[in-house]
Amino acid sequence: MKLTHLPVMDLIAAFGSPNPTPGGGSASALAGAAGAALLAMVAAMPRNRAPTAEDAGLLQATGARCGKLGDALLELVDRDSEAYDAVVAAYRLPKTTDDEKAARKAGIQAAMKRAAETPLETMRCAAEAIEAAPVVARLGSASAASDVVVATELLSAAVRGARANVEINLESLEDTAYVERLREEISEIDRRCSRVPSS
Amino acid sequence: MKLTHLPVMDLIAAFGSPNPTPGGGSASALAGAAGAALLAMVAAMPRNRAPTAEDAGLLQATGARCGKLGDALLELVDRDSEAYDAVVAAYRLPKTTDDEKAARKAGIQAAMKRAAETPLETMRCAAEAIEAAPVVARLGSASAASDVVVATELLSAAVRGARANVEINLESLEDTAYVERLREEISEIDRRCSRVPSS
Repeated sequence: MKLTHLPVMDLIAAFGSPNPTPGGGSASALAGAAGAALLAMVAAMPRNRAPTAEDAGLLQATGARCGKLGDALLELVDRDSEAYDAVVAAYRLPKTTDDEKAARKAGIQAAMKRAAETPLETMRCAAEAIEAAPVVARLGSASAASDVVVATELLSAAVRGARANVEINLESLEDTAYVERLREEISEIDRRCSRVPSS
Repeated sequence: MKLTHLPVMDLIAAFGSPNPTPGGGSASALAGAAGAALLAMVAAMPRNRAPTAEDAGLLQATGARCGKLGDALLELVDRDSEAYDAVVAAYRLPKTTDDEKAARKAGIQAAMKRAAETPLETMRCAAEAIEAAPVVARLGSASAASDVVVATELLSAAVRGARANVEINLESLEDTAYVERLREEISEIDRRCSRVPSS
């Protein structure tokens, strides 16, 4: 059963249960999905403030892109928990013989990479939506100004929450070149987000 | 149909549709519900770091309180949209005769007050959970540190997003003493949140 197919109240109950998944990675993606969807909503509302056909086209394209990002973030709610479950499964691999130990270690490292890359993808999608917010704020319906504020808050929380999840998984990785590459991308995403003017 | 009974993917789709509800108020409450639930999860995980029975009791009580706050925030997902729908319904009341006009105006003001109080309640619940986070961060399972970071990010986004929704509704209210009282509470909640050390 996918988390995103659960009733909302059951997903929240699952976050609250002592099982490690679903946890913060999925919750970050959920907040991002809600934020990106709100931007799509504002862009699609009637009575927008696009003064020209070109601006109306830009608003529509931006809203459509935010809708796609919301879909991707929703998928990441599921993928993040699956990635963490794979880490737990790898830790449970047999470790009696030397071959088993080597296979288990390789399995853990591979699963940890995926568990780091999944919230990194959440960061990418949420950051792209944050960068789209100023267009929606400027051209979208004036009556939905507070929705744009909420969207930006949720997307920023998604970026920062997902970042904490990337970083905690990087700590267990031995491939230093890989870790360095991911750390650089994290910093670059943070720089991009900090350049976006607040709504 | 309550929003919280919908499959998660359908709620996100509803946020993305051009209808004004569900909007930012419900999305803020959703982020808060996920954040509070994550704190409840971390507090309930085995291998906590409570050194004494007293601390273990504090952690358990704090986690239980966060669970309750998560439930309240989940209910606010529904209540926020209902409150906004009531505003829209009040605007649609007949306005031909003077009596109708007076009744419509009073109805709009009453509905607007509820639409301001509902996200204010979201602020209250999310702020209380933010204040609980340091106990969970200190005594909860060390392996869930990133979950506490995510929880705090989501709860802070819930407070700020809900604040934008209180404020936009206060703008239409004529009861200046009431508006002043709510503005003071908003500021007080912000002060409380800013005093909480970051996890």
